[in-house]
Amino acid sequence: MALFDLTLPELRTYRSTAPAPEGFDGFWERTLDEARAAAKPVELAEVPTPLRGITTYDVTFSGFAGQPVKAWLNVPAGAPGPLPLAIEFIGYGGGRGLPIDWLIWNAAGYAHLVMDTRGQGGNWRGGDTPDRDLDGAGPSAPGFLTRGARSPETHYYRRLFTDAARAVETAAELPGVDTSKLVTTGKSQGGALSIAAAGLLPDRVAAVVAGVPFLCDIRRAVTISDSFPFQEIVQFLRANPEKAARTFATLDHFDVVHLARRIVAPALFSTALMDTVCPPSGVFAAYNELTGPKEIEVYEWDGHDGGRSFFDVKALEFAASVLRL
Amino acid sequence: MALFDLTLPELRTYRSTAPAPEGFDGFWERTLDEARAAAKPVELAEVPTPLRGITTYDVTFSGFAGQPVKAWLNVPAGAPGPLPLAIEFIGYGGGRGLPIDWLIWNAAGYAHLVMDTRGQGGNWRGGDTPDRDLDGAGPSAPGFLTRGARSPETHYYRRLFTDAARAVETAAELPGVDTSKLVTTGKSQGGALSIAAAGLLPDRVAAVVAGVPFLCDIRRAVTISDSFPFQEIVQFLRANPEKAARTFATLDHFDVVHLARRIVAPALFSTALMDTVCPPSGVFAAYNELTGPKEIEVYEWDGHDGGRSFFDVKALEFAASVLRL
Amino acid sequence: MALFDLTLPELRTYRSTAPAPEGFDGFWERTLDEARAAAKPVELAEVPTPLRGITTYDVTFSGFAGQPVKAWLNVPAGAPGPLPLAIEFIGYGGGRGLPIDWLIWNAAGYAHLVMDTRGQGGNWRGGDTPDRDLDGAGPSAPGFLTRGARSPETHYYRRLFTDAARAVETAAELPGVDTSKLVTTGKSQGGALSIAAAGLLPDRVAAVVAGVPFLCDIRRAVTISDSFPFQEIVQFLRANPEKAARTFATLDHFDVVHLARRIVAPALFSTALMDTVCPPSGVFAAYNELTGPKEIEVYEWDGHDGGRSFFDVKALEFAASVLRL
Amino acid sequence: MALFDLTLPELRTYRSTAPAPEGFDGFWERTLDEARAAAKPVELAEVPTPLRGITTYDVTFSGFAGQPVKAWLNVPAGAPGPLPLAIEFIGYGGGRGLPIDWLIWNAAGYAHLVMDTRGQGGNWRGGDTPDRDLDGAGPSAPGFLTRGARSPETHYYRRLFTDAARAVETAAELPGVDTSKLVTTGKSQGGALSIAAAGLLPDRVAAVVAGVPFLCDIRRAVTISDSFPFQEIVQFLRANPEKAARTFATLDHFDVVHLARRIVAPALFSTALMDTVCPPSGVFAAYNELTGPKEIEVYEWDGHDGGRSFFDVKALEFAASVLRL
Amino acid sequence: MALFDLTLPELRTYRSTAPAPEGFDGFWERTLDEARAAAKPVELAEVPTPLRGITTYDVTFSGFAGQPVKAWLNVPAGAPGPLPLAIEFIGYGGGRGLPIDWLIWNAAGYAHLVMDTRGQGGNWRGGDTPDRDLDGAGPSAPGFLTRGARSPETHYYRRLFTDAARAVETAAELPGVDTSKLVTTGKSQGGALSIAAAGLLPDRVAAVVAGVPFLCDIRRAVTISDSFPFQEIVQFLRANPEKAARTFATLDHFDVVHLARRIVAPALFSTALMDTVCPPSGVFAAYNELTGPKEIEVYEWDGHDGGRSFFDVKALEFAASVLRL
Amino acid sequence: MALFDLTLPELRTYRSTAPAPEGFDGFWERTLDEARAAAKPVELAEVPTPLRGITTYDVTFSGFAGQPVKAWLNVPAGAPGPLPLAIEFIGYGGGRGLPIDWLIWNAAGYAHLVMDTRGQGGNWRGGDTPDRDLDGAGPSAPGFLTRGARSPETHYYRRLFTDAARAVETAAELPGVDTSKLVTTGKSQGGALSIAAAGLLPDRVAAVVAGVPFLCDIRRAVTISDSFPFQEIVQFLRANPEKAARTFATLDHFDVVHLARRIVAPALFSTALMDTVCPPSGVFAAYNELTGPKEIEVYEWDGHDGGRSFFDVKALEFAASVLRL
Repeated sequence: MALFDLTLPELRTYRSTAPAPEGFDGFWERTLDEARAAAKPVELAEVPTPLRGITTYDVTFSGFAGQPVKAWLNVPAGAPGPLPLAIEFIGYGGGRGLPIDWLIWNAAGYAHLVMDTRGQGGNWRGGDTPDRDLDGAGPSAPGFLTRGARSPETHYYRRLFTDAARAVETAAELPGVDTSKLVTTGKSQGGALSIAAAGLLPDRVAAVVAGVPFLCDIRRAVTISDSFPFQEIVQFLRANPEKAARTFATLDHFDVVHLARRIVAPALFSTALMDTVCPPSGVFAAYNELTGPKEIEVYEWDGHDGGRSFFDVKALEFAASVLRL
Repeated sequence: MALFDLTLPELRTYRSTAPAPEGFDGFWERTLDEARAAAKPVELAEVPTPLRGITTYDVTFSGFAGQPVKAWLNVPAGAPGPLPLAIEFIGYGGGRGLPIDWLIWNAAGYAHLVMDTRGQGGNWRGGDTPDRDLDGAGPSAPGFLTRGARSPETHYYRRLFTDAARAVETAAELPGVDTSKLVTTGKSQGGALSIAAAGLLPDRVAAVVAGVPFLCDIRRAVTISDSFPFQEIVQFLRANPEKAARTFATLDHFDVVHLARRIVAPALFSTALMDTVCPPSGVFAAYNELTGPKEIEVYEWDGHDGGRSFFDVKALEFAASVLRL
Repeated sequence: MALFDLTLPELRTYRSTAPAPEGFDGFWERTLDEARAAAKPVELAEVPTPLRGITTYDVTFSGFAGQPVKAWLNVPAGAPGPLPLAIEFIGYGGGRGLPIDWLIWNAAGYAHLVMDTRGQGGNWRGGDTPDRDLDGAGPSAPGFLTRGARSPETHYYRRLFTDAARAVETAAELPGVDTSKLVTTGKSQGGALSIAAAGLLPDRVAAVVAGVPFLCDIRRAVTISDSFPFQEIVQFLRANPEKAARTFATLDHFDVVHLARRIVAPALFSTALMDTVCPPSGVFAAYNELTGPKEIEVYEWDGHDGGRSFFDVKALEFAASVLRL
Repeated sequence: MALFDLTLPELRTYRSTAPAPEGFDGFWERTLDEARAAAKPVELAEVPTPLRGITTYDVTFSGFAGQPVKAWLNVPAGAPGPLPLAIEFIGYGGGRGLPIDWLIWNAAGYAHLVMDTRGQGGNWRGGDTPDRDLDGAGPSAPGFLTRGARSPETHYYRRLFTDAARAVETAAELPGVDTSKLVTTGKSQGGALSIAAAGLLPDRVAAVVAGVPFLCDIRRAVTISDSFPFQEIVQFLRANPEKAARTFATLDHFDVVHLARRIVAPALFSTALMDTVCPPSGVFAAYNELTGPKEIEVYEWDGHDGGRSFFDVKALEFAASVLRL
Repeated sequence: MALFDLTLPELRTYRSTAPAPEGFDGFWERTLDEARAAAKPVELAEVPTPLRGITTYDVTFSGFAGQPVKAWLNVPAGAPGPLPLAIEFIGYGGGRGLPIDWLIWNAAGYAHLVMDTRGQGGNWRGGDTPDRDLDGAGPSAPGFLTRGARSPETHYYRRLFTDAARAVETAAELPGVDTSKLVTTGKSQGGALSIAAAGLLPDRVAAVVAGVPFLCDIRRAVTISDSFPFQEIVQFLRANPEKAARTFATLDHFDVVHLARRIVAPALFSTALMDTVCPPSGVFAAYNELTGPKEIEVYEWDGHDGGRSFFDVKALEFAASVLRL
Repeated sequence: MALFDLTLPELRTYRSTAPAPEGFDGFWERTLDEARAAAKPVELAEVPTPLRGITTYDVTFSGFAGQPVKAWLNVPAGAPGPLPLAIEFIGYGGGRGLPIDWLIWNAAGYAHLVMDTRGQGGNWRGGDTPDRDLDGAGPSAPGFLTRGARSPETHYYRRLFTDAARAVETAAELPGVDTSKLVTTGKSQGGALSIAAAGLLPDRVAAVVAGVPFLCDIRRAVTISDSFPFQEIVQFLRANPEKAARTFATLDHFDVVHLARRIVAPALFSTALMDTVCPPSGVFAAYNELTGPKEIEVYEWDGHDGGRSFFDVKALEFAASVLRL
């Protein structure tokens, strides 16, 4: 890959031109209220693994509309609590997989809640949470970006963002967790969810980590990214050109640029200048909305793998510093 | 492409080794009975188009579990009825699109019912019928082959095959149709549905046309086809290897080899020897189960585009001959 | 694909910088006069098809230098004439194929003349008209863009453009045609020919339809399109760099920007913003030369498939409006 | 690439099953007689180059039907004659290019006649000889394999093979050439022409060199090669399936398996086991027909670049040995 | 991918036909003796990381010819020793990266030594150990398979296999390690090294884990794998065809089929039936040489990612069972 | 390909912004002095070939640090000396191959010294010179661009540039060479070496030919080229991001922009506007530093094959003119 987006100096000051949809805050407030009203107590079941240093629980909590959402809770075996908690969201297409897939935050002394992604997990890392789409929202391109795109009410990401916020709220019900030390974290779609959860619940989250986040400045991204998942939108609009305005009006509700604006906790973002999947202009568009303490790691030579474990180390250092561990 | 499957002489005698699932006939009888019990009368609404030689109706009929399914009904304008009816099913991923997309059977003097494909139509030709998956059947690979794969009851193709059979039954409610002259037709997934509908309702269908049909001899196809959609199964099993046996047990219910066996009407199939999407061994596996009058067009040099309008001409000639038009 | 050419606002005012070749009008006047002088009466032979609603004729008319050119004439069976006539030209590489391939205009009540493309039809839809290149014009890149590129006199498109104009003139010899209602139409190369025929015979054509037209603003297109057919020119100039100036001087005679300027009939164009085969700047370069009534459909999310049957519907509506059907 | 064709032991005994067409010898005898009858004396014009060690002539000789064909004649400057002559034929798509492109045989002390390939030279190495196709033989796939495929009389390779034979006969008119020491040579299409010329004129050629020859065992090659040029035949038959039998009947006349059988001079062939363009089974099919002294170089790890200059060295050693230089 | 190698029943009994090179045991005995003679004491330096649950040491031990080789030693913080030790080898191209990249065995209660791969680590996961190639062994294809291929003495894998054996021997010098509980483990190249180390030091290793191992049945693999790294050999032999016999004679010394035969510890292998990088016939060729207790995980639908963390879980369970943890 | 770099008018004035490294001249002076101090007399051994018009010597001369470097010396057989000498350097990845690969300069009357490229020759044209990297400089991306990148002292191109300069100095030891008529020449990497040798030894070289030279304006090239070899740097920095500054500081020593500045002999460069391997902005960056007589051939339609034998002819004409042959 070569560079393809704005230059780094341009990125530093780039702002998205997309206005927040009318009624944006009310839309989310209503959605979360409905989810809370339908919520049941979290369920935890310890599961055996060959990881003798970790205690793993199969978690079921109430997400969108009270629907059950799965997660793994990994806790360092025998650690004296309460512990800080990292709430992790997963990249596009993958589910929660196996407990063994998630060891980094435990190794750094955190409890770790890994939220399954509803409906995802069918084509790379497996998942266990169905996406109950009660309305039968109509044809969409393969994938999730246009699922239910006819309105914000029916869009897939309304349900998933709500799950993410509910995962944060569920922390208070988990044993041995210090709820003053919640970190949201994730990469790509997981980064978008990390931003979304922190933007929806700014009072609950103590630190935000978002690696190469997806769903930023969507209207621009779809004109410069040749890659999937953004190409799902192009596919859908080719098949259904009359739905373009409505589709973008819907997607605006899930552009995390508008949720980044509401974050108050310290935040660490990353972007990669050769990332054609989640273009750097989008990441900076979200980053430049942040008003609290913030840092961004810029990987000049990376694509969407942006930083890999270099960023993991940076994220742990950032979180330790913010949480004063 | 080069040849990659069995040789033509081998194909002529190839039989699938997959046994029909236990309870196969009962499964389908029960499914159809439930659909019929939930059915409402068909609705037709004339829609204006610039096609002055054709009268078009937007059709809504009751499919699986009584759920509404859309279709186009194109009738030669001013033609004296009753007319023979071609019931067309659509290739993978596409919806019913626009009435102008479907002119061939009208030009040959048929009424033409084009069934929309539930949930499809989001990435090439648009569709209008949602797939109501009330159970939230869990993660699947992008696409439809593994949607609801945990059991035959929940699998997507249970719903779609039922829609197809119901489309045939709906013919009796359409104005000006000669129900003794129903032809099921389609290519690829549409060919599979044409076989399925005729196998589910052997008494109703007068002629069967299936071009390069999909969903034939699935267990073999998935080991020799490098292409999508069969690769969806591979994707799903990579992410969920523990589900392999259950997934294939489910898919067996939708392998049209077992439904071809029940067809009694004259049938025309086609296959292409360089078709890596729907391998010729699968097509012959289904064809070699047919016990009634039958013909197969073998396109030696084609891929999955197998025959294109050469086959359309052949299909019209075949149908005219069977129906004695 | 992502956007790659000018932005839509820039396209709206973009003008080609290529001047019309000296002697351009005389070149074409002389060419058409020679073709007319060599012309023989059109021949029609009815051909049987399974399309009972359409009467099909195998047409042979006199094209460039009086050479025989094939066409299909499809007429709605039993329609009272005289009928408006759509004269269709075909996309690059394809021939007239089968009568069943051409049903749209009949379904809308038109007689439909589909001109075969000399020499084309060997690699996707079959053709029946040889390209008699009497001079043996020398090596060219595979394809037609550089065939006979040593001079405008010997270039392939001189012959093909002349065939197209002669197809329009032939309409007067066809039975049951209302020659005041001739529409030229086509996509890609067919769109270029639609423009060319209307520009060569501005008094004969009542409406012009050109979908994603090829051969527009060639000198620019060849520097921004990575795709074939424009890459044929790059191939040829790599092998024969000393011929660059002469080749472009020749191609200027077939850049439809210069023929669009002569059109007086109402015209409908289309372009797609992700079309790398016929870049949108070229289409607008031609469109912006039109001085008569005009419309352009811009498909923001399409590639070279620009609009597909959405555009077909639009074209029928446009033609019906212009012809007051 | 991995191995894809027969194993080496199988190749050693592989025979083509294609019978020679009826009237094969007469077809070629008549064709050559007509060419000879129309022939004019060769023309030579010295051309300046920066190659001070070589004298270069631009040659025009009479090929098929007496049509002019270009060649380069490179002679070591100041060498005392008469010299042995290498007659070189060129790979698919290329023309004679520049005199500087052809230095190997001169460096070994030969005069070197490089025949231009009619009609080729438009997409990689330039050419100067038009292909005069007086009959306008109809649409063909881009390229030359199906040009004029409706009959052996009109096929492109009838003209090109005749040019090659005439190039050999022309040697007698060239100054300073020892006509008892003529070597035909070439790679790929050039190898096929080397075989063809030697098979058509077995009495004139003293040694035959054919590297990875094309046009061998065509009916099999087209079913196992995914690559162009053989895929041209597949393209053509997809567009024109009704022409399959006639096309292969025509191509049989240009399958060099049937001409290899007539060679009496010592011959050196090469093949590469990973060559998907000219599969090794074809090369051995031709090689195994040779009845005179013969050698074959088998490059186990090469694709169609088979041996490169390793084979050039081998070819020079072989020729020196046969010609007792 | 589709299946491309032998069927599973064939694989179960497949044996490599490659004989062990003459003097094979002596070659390795001499090589190891020289390395031991040149060895210096291991060096450990604790390094800070944000992983509070793990103590990490930067290890430098003596590998081939006493050259320094880097490793990470990760030990569960505060765990009472002595601990079992997993010795991990890395896949092709990667270096030891960061300590955070290696958490699985720690989480299961092991000390974990991750050996850096000399010379690798320049194109995906970084490394820190140079490959000192004192002889300047001559040109090779990019990569390591043909580096020093002129003789077993100079080949890269002689050095790397020796490093791997020395890593096992170094375990005795590490603090808090139970040397009766050494597990060698790795995937792909790491799997080959796991086999090699255990075959070179059969008395030292208590359990062997080899996921989708590389370097098995090399002579066959290179004819059926289209992928790198085996294609490096093809590249090299194309450039240097005269070196084929010598190259394979060299590579035989590093075909782990011959080292698997010497293993006595219980072993767990894995293979994937769609793995074109390390074909399953090679893996079974090695597996079928094992004479001790053994298991093989066969992933039917995977490529070279064979099993991913499903296999990690299996490996931990296997090791716990063998070591009676 | 389409155009992707600056426009031609912009290129004409483009200057690199990279400053020459501090101590640049001293670095090279010291390096060359050390090489000279370690040099031994050149060795020549005549080798037999089938090229009767050329006498070939296998040459061994002293390169970097006195290490032996191979070359071919081809001399027109029996030519009266002293002759001008062309010193040729080879493109990336290839070695000196066979004497038959190098005939152009001989044919024009030159003696021709073809320097082998240390370590290269393992994946396309074979080589015979090892790269003795005595320091074991650490992991690098496959290839040579990052080999030894930790400092200018250890970088591969320090050794190779020195070899090139030493090849020029070796000319004085070759029999029958007119040392006042030395031409350095090459393409791609060979072009870079041609510039480097002439810049290092400005007094020795009479004419410089550099076709599509590599290693120009490296810092920019790596951000606009999607192709290898420049992508090696991207690979390396992805794996080792902390080494970016040091790596570029090292590479600056081998950016031939800084050596072009020192050339005084007449120079001929070429570039191709669609060359994504060695972007035209880099070539002009070097060309625009030249202060002596200079010419540049711009191939508008070529990629990295830039000009092919058209450029060879131009190069011979240029050299003949400069040397007054």
